[in-house]
Amino acid sequence: MAKVQPRTLSGFMELLPGRQIQFDRMAAIIRESFSLYGFTPLDTPLIEASEVLLAKGGGETEKQIYRFSKGDSDLSLRFDLTVPLAKYVALNYANLAFPFRRFQIGKVYRGERAQRGRFREFYQADIDIIGDGKLDVFNDAEIPAIIYRTFTALGLRRFQIRVNNRKILNGFYAMLNLTQKSSDIMRTVDKLEKIGEKSVRDLLTSPEIGLSDEEAAEILRFIDIKGDNSFVLSSLEQYRGRNPMFDEGLDELGLVAKNLAGFGVPEENFALDLTIARGLDYYTGTVYETTMLDHPEIGSICSGGRFDNLAEYYTDRQLPGVGISIGLTRLFFVLEDQGYLNDQLNTAPADVLILPMTEDMAPSISLATNLRTAGVRTQIYGEQKKFKQKMSYADKLAVPYVIFLGEDEIKDGAAAVKNMRTGEQVKLPIAEAVTYIQSGLSELNQGAPILDKGVQ
Amino acid sequence: MAKVQPRTLSGFMELLPGRQIQFDRMAAIIRESFSLYGFTPLDTPLIEASEVLLAKGGGETEKQIYRFSKGDSDLSLRFDLTVPLAKYVALNYANLAFPFRRFQIGKVYRGERAQRGRFREFYQADIDIIGDGKLDVFNDAEIPAIIYRTFTALGLRRFQIRVNNRKILNGFYAMLNLTQKSSDIMRTVDKLEKIGEKSVRDLLTSPEIGLSDEEAAEILRFIDIKGDNSFVLSSLEQYRGRNPMFDEGLDELGLVAKNLAGFGVPEENFALDLTIARGLDYYTGTVYETTMLDHPEIGSICSGGRFDNLAEYYTDRQLPGVGISIGLTRLFFVLEDQGYLNDQLNTAPADVLILPMTEDMAPSISLATNLRTAGVRTQIYGEQKKFKQKMSYADKLAVPYVIFLGEDEIKDGAAAVKNMRTGEQVKLPIAEAVTYIQSGLSELNQGAPILDKGVQ
Repeated sequence: MAKVQPRTLSGFMELLPGRQIQFDRMAAIIRESFSLYGFTPLDTPLIEASEVLLAKGGGETEKQIYRFSKGDSDLSLRFDLTVPLAKYVALNYANLAFPFRRFQIGKVYRGERAQRGRFREFYQADIDIIGDGKLDVFNDAEIPAIIYRTFTALGLRRFQIRVNNRKILNGFYAMLNLTQKSSDIMRTVDKLEKIGEKSVRDLLTSPEIGLSDEEAAEILRFIDIKGDNSFVLSSLEQYRGRNPMFDEGLDELGLVAKNLAGFGVPEENFALDLTIARGLDYYTGTVYETTMLDHPEIGSICSGGRFDNLAEYYTDRQLPGVGISIGLTRLFFVLEDQGYLNDQLNTAPADVLILPMTEDMAPSISLATNLRTAGVRTQIYGEQKKFKQKMSYADKLAVPYVIFLGEDEIKDGAAAVKNMRTGEQVKLPIAEAVTYIQSGLSELNQGAPILDKGVQ
Repeated sequence: MAKVQPRTLSGFMELLPGRQIQFDRMAAIIRESFSLYGFTPLDTPLIEASEVLLAKGGGETEKQIYRFSKGDSDLSLRFDLTVPLAKYVALNYANLAFPFRRFQIGKVYRGERAQRGRFREFYQADIDIIGDGKLDVFNDAEIPAIIYRTFTALGLRRFQIRVNNRKILNGFYAMLNLTQKSSDIMRTVDKLEKIGEKSVRDLLTSPEIGLSDEEAAEILRFIDIKGDNSFVLSSLEQYRGRNPMFDEGLDELGLVAKNLAGFGVPEENFALDLTIARGLDYYTGTVYETTMLDHPEIGSICSGGRFDNLAEYYTDRQLPGVGISIGLTRLFFVLEDQGYLNDQLNTAPADVLILPMTEDMAPSISLATNLRTAGVRTQIYGEQKKFKQKMSYADKLAVPYVIFLGEDEIKDGAAAVKNMRTGEQVKLPIAEAVTYIQSGLSELNQGAPILDKGVQ
């Protein structure tokens, strides 16, 4: 028969079993962390009507989208989890309680140019809090606190959540009478880290943007306010009273900083940073980016902010919100690439492999049932193979324990348990064998999925 | 601004928050159960090259598939989890250990005619065991044992896993010299439960199939062998010696029945049933279907079987396997529709809602951190609203506990905890409040997600 070459599409992550278990462990920790903060899980369809998904329309989105027809329907794959959330909230408004706190961990699709570390199918892990008419700024502080707790639970240490407020930026540009140019300016300033101060200055004073040298200098001086959070806040106080929006933004930023400290987020893990603007016009207040301190070149691994109007394309209701998104697939790729994954943790599909040494499988089945009831992931090796092949299978799976069950063991109501990491083998009564393995596993499963070498 | 009507596509399940939590709880139990048997999780892309996905081609599949172009690529959404598994195994053969045991819980897509209870996007929860060259029949018994354990953990009681073996059927038709017609016959016999014996007899003797009355009678007599498993096996023994394939199938069925008993599956939950053939030509040995005893009209909720050659379209390697698939979305729909979901379990997004009664949020944040560290899902209500509105929010979320934190409580290092189900309110020191809530929750979270009324 002619064969089709099996392949996985470029830009689509497909992991080998051990890596998949590491990925799933990270996703489970994120899920648990989001749940602890009272977010409810949602699972919206991958496919939506194009008209709904592209209600906002335009821009990069439309170029990258996977769009197709089925029958009479014009359909698209979701390209983020925010637009489906907007649809969901508008559609189910009457059945939801506000503030509505939801998380979603799901795949999204963008037909980007394929390149290393860029994915066309990737997981986002999002939290959003949506208010009905109003939403307190308290929520703006809780979001990064959740991200801090989540990354810490994953084992990440050397990261920094950088926080700014668009009202401060907009207010500042209003002071300079540059409101009309503020979008261009912010887009340019956003590139500061990538292209450097000189290039930013050149762009700002170029004919396209057209600032004077003084204006550019003023902006760069402002953006250059750096230091610990109390220094940044006190430096900003010097601008107070010149623009109401600026003052409002400064109040909000101060509250966020105060509450973040209350939430126990250490200063090294969050910074007030006036260079953060987020490219999107969507955000109206607090904005977040998160960088790995030892790998700034990776860019933001978790971004978001405050928006005024989640679902304006679907409803007249004012639904302000604040949210953040972890680019999980890309983060996992980077962590693997940079050697951050904790390979000491058990990534075998089973904790125990039982090798029956008798023809009758009943004793092995019974032992396996005991182990599984105790929560131990157990596989019975049921193939007729030579001993050496069985052991080579155990090695290839990297199972932590192998149990040999021969006539002697069965007669004695015992099991011969081999710890595959130490090579140590003991014969124990069944009940003891179970607890022996349980305690070994609990030790083995300690530790987080990420080993951040930046910290001892 | 002109609004787009928000809507979710027909045939796509999108749940309200409480229901989503119930669905996720079921999926988590299935995942845990599959893991306990040493299956490794996989997560393959939703999109594959059409050439790869449709390597087998033809039939219903091709009509129902979501297929589209992106750039130069001819792409399709997966319509099951088996073809992607075949691709995965062929592609990663060198890096896998065989038998390769994997589970996958994921969405698949079929553009079926939309009707109530039919979905175009739905979850399948699959387990498969793939051998390299050979795979012992022991595995054929383990698969339904896993399904028994899984459904039982979900709370389902009144279900029956029905097992047959295609070799018995094929061998039987060979005895009657009807091998060439066996596909037609099996497809017809498969309809027995739906259309009744008379219609099946008419179809068998119709010109299209063209059996004699005697042949039809012989087949219906054979199919009618019913009773407990030992009766079925002994009745089949009477046919032994007339066809080698039949004898092989009978041996296999006997082994499966014996080991299923060893795995502790009660006879009421599994039956040897000669009417089960599975429509697909794909299956070559053991076949499974699972029915809800009180709702036979729903059809099979979990089906599968033994196949000789998983990946024949991609590789010359012989990769036999055995597997089964739970149609999770449809099962959930049916369970909700028939009132099987256990609505007593907590489906609130949070276990505790803290209502701060002071302006300073610090004490609430600190209490929330305590609760979250203890694993209690906690939300702080951060909005400036009237007390009545706060309580109405708590009611709408259906949170089990509300904590009031006013100046008195803060002064005393205490919390006023209200059990929202009983209305009881107690003031407790913080540490005691945490354990009080923990113990209440552990009681509340007892019980399975399905309440099978068929059993007391």
